[in-house]
Amino acid sequence: MLSIQDALEAVEGRWKLLILFSLSEKPKRFKQISREVNGITDKTLSKELKSLEANQLIRRDVHSTFPPTVEYTITPHGQSLEKVLDELHFWGLLHRKKIIGK
Amino acid sequence: MLSIQDALEAVEGRWKLLILFSLSEKPKRFKQISREVNGITDKTLSKELKSLEANQLIRRDVHSTFPPTVEYTITPHGQSLEKVLDELHFWGLLHRKKIIGK
Repeated sequence: MLSIQDALEAVEGRWKLLILFSLSEKPKRFKQISREVNGITDKTLSKELKSLEANQLIRRDVHSTFPPTVEYTITPHGQSLEKVLDELHFWGLLHRKKIIGK
Repeated sequence: MLSIQDALEAVEGRWKLLILFSLSEKPKRFKQISREVNGITDKTLSKELKSLEANQLIRRDVHSTFPPTVEYTITPHGQSLEKVLDELHFWGLLHRKKIIGK
């Protein structure tokens, strides 16, 4: 039970898994993530990115272009959540059909 | 992405999956669940049980004993979350080792 509690604390709230899902495709800039994750405010996204970084689920890279650009990349540890995301995805489809779709 | 959002809304917060995990073993009474889910208050547990019932993930049965007893049972739809729980469990172990255990 403790392991599930740990997992849920690392990804708690409704945003973190969605952000990881977005980054699982490819590294992205702040604005790209913000567009893809429906309904998130910039303030919340910024907070969630910091927390994901602290949990080593994503990496923040500053590229020395002019002006400097910042990109967020999913780490191998973040990628290891992929099966959880897949199962959530399948279950979400099922749930939508059962509860929301009827 | 929408399906993941649906799934997360049905099980949002840190408690619902833990309650389902506890009920996946067998039907339980309120006090049993409360003892097993570390740190949850009775008020929160009561609210979470209502929400899980509304999403058809658990069933609330009143048995006509004297005094009446109430038991909570996971539904087949709740059981369909088992794979998500399993993957979260495995990932939680990994995460604990990587982040917390070091």
